[in-house]
Amino acid sequence: MIIMETDATEKQIAQVIKEIKRYGLRADVSKGAYRTVIGIIGDERKIPFDHFAALPGVKEARGVEIPYKLISREYTKLYGGEGKQVIIKVGNIGIGSDEPVYIAGPCAVESKEQLLKITEGVKKAGAHILRGGIFKPRSSVHSFQGLGAGGWEEAEEALDWLHEAGKRFELLTITEVRGEAQVDLAAEYADILQIGTRNMYNQDLLTKVAKKNKPVLFKRHFGAGIEEFLSFAEYIAAEGNKDIILCERGILPVGKGKSYTRYTLDLASIPAIQKETYLPVVVDPSHATGRRDLIFNMSCAAIAAGANGLMIETHYNPAEAVVDGQQTITLDELKEIIDACQKIYKLIAPVRNKG
Amino acid sequence: MIIMETDATEKQIAQVIKEIKRYGLRADVSKGAYRTVIGIIGDERKIPFDHFAALPGVKEARGVEIPYKLISREYTKLYGGEGKQVIIKVGNIGIGSDEPVYIAGPCAVESKEQLLKITEGVKKAGAHILRGGIFKPRSSVHSFQGLGAGGWEEAEEALDWLHEAGKRFELLTITEVRGEAQVDLAAEYADILQIGTRNMYNQDLLTKVAKKNKPVLFKRHFGAGIEEFLSFAEYIAAEGNKDIILCERGILPVGKGKSYTRYTLDLASIPAIQKETYLPVVVDPSHATGRRDLIFNMSCAAIAAGANGLMIETHYNPAEAVVDGQQTITLDELKEIIDACQKIYKLIAPVRNKG
Amino acid sequence: MIIMETDATEKQIAQVIKEIKRYGLRADVSKGAYRTVIGIIGDERKIPFDHFAALPGVKEARGVEIPYKLISREYTKLYGGEGKQVIIKVGNIGIGSDEPVYIAGPCAVESKEQLLKITEGVKKAGAHILRGGIFKPRSSVHSFQGLGAGGWEEAEEALDWLHEAGKRFELLTITEVRGEAQVDLAAEYADILQIGTRNMYNQDLLTKVAKKNKPVLFKRHFGAGIEEFLSFAEYIAAEGNKDIILCERGILPVGKGKSYTRYTLDLASIPAIQKETYLPVVVDPSHATGRRDLIFNMSCAAIAAGANGLMIETHYNPAEAVVDGQQTITLDELKEIIDACQKIYKLIAPVRNKG
Amino acid sequence: MIIMETDATEKQIAQVIKEIKRYGLRADVSKGAYRTVIGIIGDERKIPFDHFAALPGVKEARGVEIPYKLISREYTKLYGGEGKQVIIKVGNIGIGSDEPVYIAGPCAVESKEQLLKITEGVKKAGAHILRGGIFKPRSSVHSFQGLGAGGWEEAEEALDWLHEAGKRFELLTITEVRGEAQVDLAAEYADILQIGTRNMYNQDLLTKVAKKNKPVLFKRHFGAGIEEFLSFAEYIAAEGNKDIILCERGILPVGKGKSYTRYTLDLASIPAIQKETYLPVVVDPSHATGRRDLIFNMSCAAIAAGANGLMIETHYNPAEAVVDGQQTITLDELKEIIDACQKIYKLIAPVRNKG
Repeated sequence: MIIMETDATEKQIAQVIKEIKRYGLRADVSKGAYRTVIGIIGDERKIPFDHFAALPGVKEARGVEIPYKLISREYTKLYGGEGKQVIIKVGNIGIGSDEPVYIAGPCAVESKEQLLKITEGVKKAGAHILRGGIFKPRSSVHSFQGLGAGGWEEAEEALDWLHEAGKRFELLTITEVRGEAQVDLAAEYADILQIGTRNMYNQDLLTKVAKKNKPVLFKRHFGAGIEEFLSFAEYIAAEGNKDIILCERGILPVGKGKSYTRYTLDLASIPAIQKETYLPVVVDPSHATGRRDLIFNMSCAAIAAGANGLMIETHYNPAEAVVDGQQTITLDELKEIIDACQKIYKLIAPVRNKG
Repeated sequence: MIIMETDATEKQIAQVIKEIKRYGLRADVSKGAYRTVIGIIGDERKIPFDHFAALPGVKEARGVEIPYKLISREYTKLYGGEGKQVIIKVGNIGIGSDEPVYIAGPCAVESKEQLLKITEGVKKAGAHILRGGIFKPRSSVHSFQGLGAGGWEEAEEALDWLHEAGKRFELLTITEVRGEAQVDLAAEYADILQIGTRNMYNQDLLTKVAKKNKPVLFKRHFGAGIEEFLSFAEYIAAEGNKDIILCERGILPVGKGKSYTRYTLDLASIPAIQKETYLPVVVDPSHATGRRDLIFNMSCAAIAAGANGLMIETHYNPAEAVVDGQQTITLDELKEIIDACQKIYKLIAPVRNKG
Repeated sequence: MIIMETDATEKQIAQVIKEIKRYGLRADVSKGAYRTVIGIIGDERKIPFDHFAALPGVKEARGVEIPYKLISREYTKLYGGEGKQVIIKVGNIGIGSDEPVYIAGPCAVESKEQLLKITEGVKKAGAHILRGGIFKPRSSVHSFQGLGAGGWEEAEEALDWLHEAGKRFELLTITEVRGEAQVDLAAEYADILQIGTRNMYNQDLLTKVAKKNKPVLFKRHFGAGIEEFLSFAEYIAAEGNKDIILCERGILPVGKGKSYTRYTLDLASIPAIQKETYLPVVVDPSHATGRRDLIFNMSCAAIAAGANGLMIETHYNPAEAVVDGQQTITLDELKEIIDACQKIYKLIAPVRNKG
Repeated sequence: MIIMETDATEKQIAQVIKEIKRYGLRADVSKGAYRTVIGIIGDERKIPFDHFAALPGVKEARGVEIPYKLISREYTKLYGGEGKQVIIKVGNIGIGSDEPVYIAGPCAVESKEQLLKITEGVKKAGAHILRGGIFKPRSSVHSFQGLGAGGWEEAEEALDWLHEAGKRFELLTITEVRGEAQVDLAAEYADILQIGTRNMYNQDLLTKVAKKNKPVLFKRHFGAGIEEFLSFAEYIAAEGNKDIILCERGILPVGKGKSYTRYTLDLASIPAIQKETYLPVVVDPSHATGRRDLIFNMSCAAIAAGANGLMIETHYNPAEAVVDGQQTITLDELKEIIDACQKIYKLIAPVRNKG
């Protein structure tokens, strides 16, 4: 849609129409009392709106259509599809079904013993997927970057522990790939590949990960709006991989002074996103709050808001964890959370369908 | 706490100590390998930290103690109090008890008939308190500002309808005061006075409202951090009125592009605030999301997160509402929400106590 | 403009058209390949867009026209006016002319001696207007709130000092009104009334101040976008008072970690606002940066960006100032800044006209 | 620094001290009237503060020292260095000297003819460095991603044009590397490698680019605070490459409604950053404002604020540009801007040294 200035001339309007035709589309001119608005008939993705905004006499040029058509419910329906919630099958579980999935494990894999001990507890607590960071993105180059920082051999060893722990306790596995060079190796060992919040805009990584044809857990950047988040998920879908699990993990806090939570957990984004796309949405309350004592409440709230699952940092002794100890819960707490969330989900699911 | 520059001289350190003494307090000097840190012994609220930050050799000067001691659990305990969750008694209800309170009604009072019809439905749905806006803050001077804009007589008539509707259907009443001139009149008719998000920083209004010795529902500004929010609630408490109901109603969205919700509902602020203060916290999902179709989910999520109540815009026919139609739910939807929330609260309350 | 859902029915479109007519306007229906867009012919301010957004089949409803027509260059021209930059005359100066105005003085008036001493220096440095806070808005109820907090008698005494200092050194005066009760008194003494950042949304105060028919310096809220800022300036203009000096004073910082400035000074807002409205725009680098050592650079930058003036906190001895010492400059520094800014303005003004 | 809870026990304090020792450092315990504060003696970078924050009895644990010591003026001085502004030598120019550098060219390289024609004009206008995007990061997968998207052969051809254009018109060259796979190729052709705003947090890319031992132009992420920005620049410095040119290019806008600029140009960050680090800071007003009509004003403002240079999108006919036409200026405008900026710089430089 091209909105003209109130004093735009006929010649300027004609130029805009001519330009639209140059891109193989048709213009639908609507003259109001104050100004002229020019609609676009055809696939508006072909239009470089910023180019149009620079034409003389143009006040505003913007797409009306959404930029994430491949993963959109509305456009899928428009093109004859169903646009229904998809269920991503991984091993014996389905992500996106009525039943929430629970992903748990340590922030960083530290040793084989640590990982196995945690995995056992995570399984007992009722989780389905084991998480464990080997390539850790960190705010400071001087912080511990995960065992993967020790070289490819150490990285592979740690990935093998993850694989083995998952196999022994019958859990699927997920690990984060932080850079392009890690994609091939990680894909050999993990069932699901994770793209972290700081890499949401890293389109080269997205494309490379997408091509492995494994499910991708894709985290929202802490500075990204929902439209941007979905537009970058579209980069994965554009490679033909629609097994995308979206993950809300908190956005930048607003306001001066102490915020009391590390990020702002945007739970309303869950139903808002679910109405836009057929992809499942999970929530990471650990990074969002940064506080162990808020995880129970926010996990319950996420499931009540309609989340398709949770990802929670868990350790047998959080005070021992090398990374993120202050936001890591115990194995007992994990069990309490999963039990409470299951009750809430069973209570809400049938009522919500009516609403 | 005063943190000195690494190259601060002995003379500069001595000056800081002298200044601290000038305010009647004592300095606790701690010299590290890199720099000197000077703690403050005594009531640090007497210290103008920005003045200290301007002294030569000072890198940083900040309070360690919180700025909202009157409403703080920690300081209440420190001074011999219990610091337990308070229950604000209004009429026959207690806000802050285990049982959530439900506040509902139209965004704006439009007519006596409209109000009575809504009140009847709100009561049947299970709400405790009737809301109705008479003095409406609006983004544009050209929008409808509520019946109160018609003059004091019309305002009083509308307030009387509110009072009458509450009495007839045995509901308590709440209305917003937008400016100082409205406080006396509103306090004659409403059981609870509301200070809106745009007035959170309006300290003259806060002080005037506090003095009426009626419970105050105090909304967080959409650009305020939690510390600021509590610091301004302290303005009300400083007048001797601690019957303050804090209300989370959404903060500024982050990121470019369409955000899909009007504001970002910060549900993690509920338990975070409840750990800081003994005051109850309620949630307004209507203004936060701006979307009728998200109210059910976000109401459930708010109660699961531990909210002490909800405030929801309700109308028998939202499409007819003069203000905020797109975020207003029907009376039937209100009933469904209250029913679901009651089930969640009963399920969570005993488990959370264990957590 | 009403944008319909792709699957909107003919009946839903007809209902929207009917509703538009109900408000006395005409609809301009434009059917595209994907969806129908309905333009509005007539004064769209009569349309409650949120009501339309709630109608079935509607995807988006929003105004195309700006909400601040009274102060808009574009609309003034549209209705036959010139839309040129206005020059607000106060005493012997004109704010909005090519020549920048300089406003300086202490953050808070502390005593008659302090004020006179500062005023003398401010005059010598080349400033035109004396600022001095008597009713101070503060983040904490436990901080010094200005001499005005001592009662009306003390407030009047301090206002009288301000008036006297201005008269003695031939400077105009400005002071902030924080609440409605202070408006009448402040208007008796000061030449210009200031509305602070925290009161930008306080429409009752805006209306009351506007009615005094004195120039108003109106600060942008730190959480407000430009459109909102101008929409609230419209509240003042709607009372017939167009002597509005807009003031950029910094907005909320973005991002985690230390930000190194108190707020983010949004200098690009100066030319952006000047293109929208004929009102002058001044800049307050003191509150924006919160750092004395950045005031020189940011003052020069503001004038280079096209600001019509500056407001700077100044004291003969900043370390003695009771409020905001860390962001207050000396009288010598003020002179250096005004000298440098005058050179920049003379250099840029003729070139910019060509550009 | 570890700040204990007011009710922390002696045992809890002892545990913290023991933990500090475990990391090879010493504790400096300071007991106040309310609470105990424990300072750290030694290199606090060895301390995982989030681990300490999780210990019982701890209220807050944070570093006092900055996380970007390698590029810090303060720490360079502390360890015997000078901490003075560095001048990064590239070809015959020095970035960081008193004289600003001007970087200009098209957003995207489109053809050899386009590039040569622009390069000629850019040189005549007085610029020093030619910019041209070959690997374009874009918000939508459906937008033009630069000639580099056509395959490695096309990318190399376009890089060769850039190199040739620079050689023919005696300009240095800069181009953006968007992903790890592009680093080696780009480094063969360009004099300076650029890391874009969306990749600021992409530590694997930073490390790979740093290793090429070419100067790096490093853009601040639009959601990053200054401390974070410098902490990620530290990733480059940690590879032994300190030829880092920091670039401010606008941060996320704040507030509701239309913002009128694409991002918020944070000019106060220039002097704030320059006081922290000895690295030069340049400004990109094109992406920050997104508006051709604001580039003149904001370029002048950036130089007045102390920027060491500017990067401006330029085209002989902006309306023809495939990408970013609305924010691209003409070659004549570029000349006007460079002329005005040179005058401002000469005027300010000697005065600022006094200030």
